[in-house]
Parts: sequence; C-alpha cells; structure tokens
Amino acid sequence: MKLYSLKNGVNPRRVRIFLAEKRVSVPVEEFDMESAGHKQPAFLAKNPLGTLPVLELDDGTLISESVAICRYFEEMIPEPPLFGRSSLERAQVEMWNRRMELELLLPTIDVFVHTNPFWVGKRTQIAAWGEQRRKVLVERMGWLDRELAGREFIGIDRYNIADITAQVALLTARGALKLAIPEDHANLTRWWNAVSSRPTARA
Amino acid sequence: MKLYSLKNGVNPRRVRIFLAEKRVSVPVEEFDMESAGHKQPAFLAKNPLGTLPVLELDDGTLISESVAICRYFEEMIPEPPLFGRSSLERAQVEMWNRRMELELLLPTIDVFVHTNPFWVGKRTQIAAWGEQRRKVLVERMGWLDRELAGREFIGIDRYNIADITAQVALLTARGALKLAIPEDHANLTRWWNAVSSRPTARA
Repeated sequence: MKLYSLKNGVNPRRVRIFLAEKRVSVPVEEFDMESAGHKQPAFLAKNPLGTLPVLELDDGTLISESVAICRYFEEMIPEPPLFGRSSLERAQVEMWNRRMELELLLPTIDVFVHTNPFWVGKRTQIAAWGEQRRKVLVERMGWLDRELAGREFIGIDRYNIADITAQVALLTARGALKLAIPEDHANLTRWWNAVSSRPTARA
Repeated sequence: MKLYSLKNGVNPRRVRIFLAEKRVSVPVEEFDMESAGHKQPAFLAKNPLGTLPVLELDDGTLISESVAICRYFEEMIPEPPLFGRSSLERAQVEMWNRRMELELLLPTIDVFVHTNPFWVGKRTQIAAWGEQRRKVLVERMGWLDRELAGREFIGIDRYNIADITAQVALLTARGALKLAIPEDHANLTRWWNAVSSRPTARA
C-alpha cells in the first residue's frame, strides 16, 4: 500500500489527520507543486485528473479523492468511527461533511486559486469570482458559528470527518487567505481551539 | 417522513431517481424557484442554507444534502446496493460519485447560474467564470468517455449513485446549457443510452 500525496496540499492534510486519528501509518510518496510530477505521464496513468491524494493498494487498485480514501480506511479500521456509528449518524456525518466541503472548503480553495499571487501564470484567475467566494466564506463562518451553539463537534456528538474538513478549510483560510475566524464568533472559536489542540491536528 | 423538494431542481432529481431504484415512495412537499418558499423563515428554520432537498424524519430530525438523504435510504433499504456492496466497492463508489459531482455536476451548475438569462437579477453572474467552467465540462466529457471504454457503469460493475449523479449532470447540460454529448464520444453515448432507458430515468 502507498499513498501519493502533495506537500502543503489542502486535501492531503485531511487524509493525514484522518489516518492519525485511526493510528495508522501508510508509506507516502510526496509530490510538490513546483516540480509538479503529478502532472506528468507516469502519474497521470494512475490518475488522469492529476489530483492528489491517491491511494494505491497492494494489488494495484487505485483510489482517488480524499473522502474515498478515508472511507476505505474507515472500512478497514472501524475504530474510532469517523463517519458515524449508527445509520442516522452516518447520514448526519455525510450531510455535515458535505456542508463543510461545499460551504467552507471549496470557497476557500476558490479564493486562494483566483486571488493569490502564487497561482499567477499557473491558472486563469478570475478576481471577481474569488471576491464573490470570499463573501460566501465570511458569511458561512457566521452560519457555522450559530450552528455550533451548544455543540462540541460538527453534526454529531463525537469528533468526525466533518470536523476534519472544517478544520483544514479554516486552517487554509487563516494561512493562505489571511481570513481568521472573527473574534466575536465565540462558538466557532471554542470549537477551533478544541480541534486544533488535538494531537492529530498537525499530522 | 417527508421530503422537501424543488420543482425542476437538479439535486432533487438525483434523490428521486435513487428512491425509484430502491422502489420506495416518500411523501413530498414541493417548492418552486418562482415563489421560493424555501428561502422564507418557516423553511429556513429547517435548513438555514435554504437548499433542497431536505428529508424530515418522523421524530423531526432533518437531513439536508442529496447524498446524505440517499445514504440514509441505503442504510434503511440495503437492496439494491447503490453505494457499493463490499468495502472496496464502497470506496470506489465514493471516489466516482465525487468525481461525477466535482467534474461534471458542479461545473454544469456553475455554467447554468453564471451564463443563463434565468438567473439575471437572482444571482451575481460572472460570465468569465461560466465560460471557464464550460471548457472544464467539455473537457471532462472527453475524459469520462475514455474512462468508460469497456465499462458498463461508472466505477463498479453495477448501476450506482455515481451513474445517477452523472446522468443528472448530463441531462442538465443537454437541457439547460444545450451542451449534448458529442457524437464521437462513443463510450459515453452508449452509457447514456443505457442509463437513460432505465424505468427510473424519468422519476
């Protein structure tokens, strides 16, 4: 088994935190944005979309998409459950992980790609789109703050993959976009301090 | 149990096809874009994001997000399995359903929202973003055509939720964007003809 990963990649970090929570270690081959080996033919044969991470099983089976890789490990190593323990919890985690992706993570990536100097010449940047997505992201931080009133974790009463997704999104927003959680977002700040102090947070 | 849905909505159609494949019927309350009751306080109390569909269970529990609703029904009614039968299949279906969402469905919705006259005055349209996403969508149709060489369904050897997602994306592309599958995409056309002729395709 081998995990193809990307240095400083947003999605690879989700998988790293997930694996650390499962207390499992997987051999990693790491690419980087500068040399971009994952956009070369040898890797495109494994994933024509050129996205990372990709998990390669011992029989050569390839699994792309962070959440698919996490789900595979959830099946192999059920404890601790990070996708929910009961049928209802599994639906609720699905719901909240998707909300964290669609409402936080994808806007964060859009703002980064469309407004950050790092991407000049690498992608066609549309500044107006980046600014529209920045407004969405700020609005959604307020929404999540309200949703976290009286709640320790996102969606269910146990740390789960939706927390990981939100954690990575807000870490990226703070680092790459200089968009920190506003001080008056007390619930979101409390949650952030809790998840950021887990031993797996810097995996 | 009640399903809140949206007339002609792209995501509600995914759930309708899924439920038809499971041979289950659920009472539906349908909103429409014109009167937009789902953006009013009574419904926003159920889902502050104002998105549809939403499933309300008999105890009042609310599940938003199409795939979360589908996953709930998969747990309740396991046959036929539409998220995969084995651990590996479940990871592969997750992988491919995400690819169909990220590479086909989200670009389709972006093109529609950012270039179609229907949305003038309802959303801030960014034409350049719509055009960039149209190119992505056309390119991804070519990719999916290549991926479907020698394959009957998407990801695994049985009709599954990734097929449903792709089906709804390409139906919307053809209808709302006038972007049909190019004639020289023989694999994609074969797959399209097969999934479109299922009894559930017009659910």
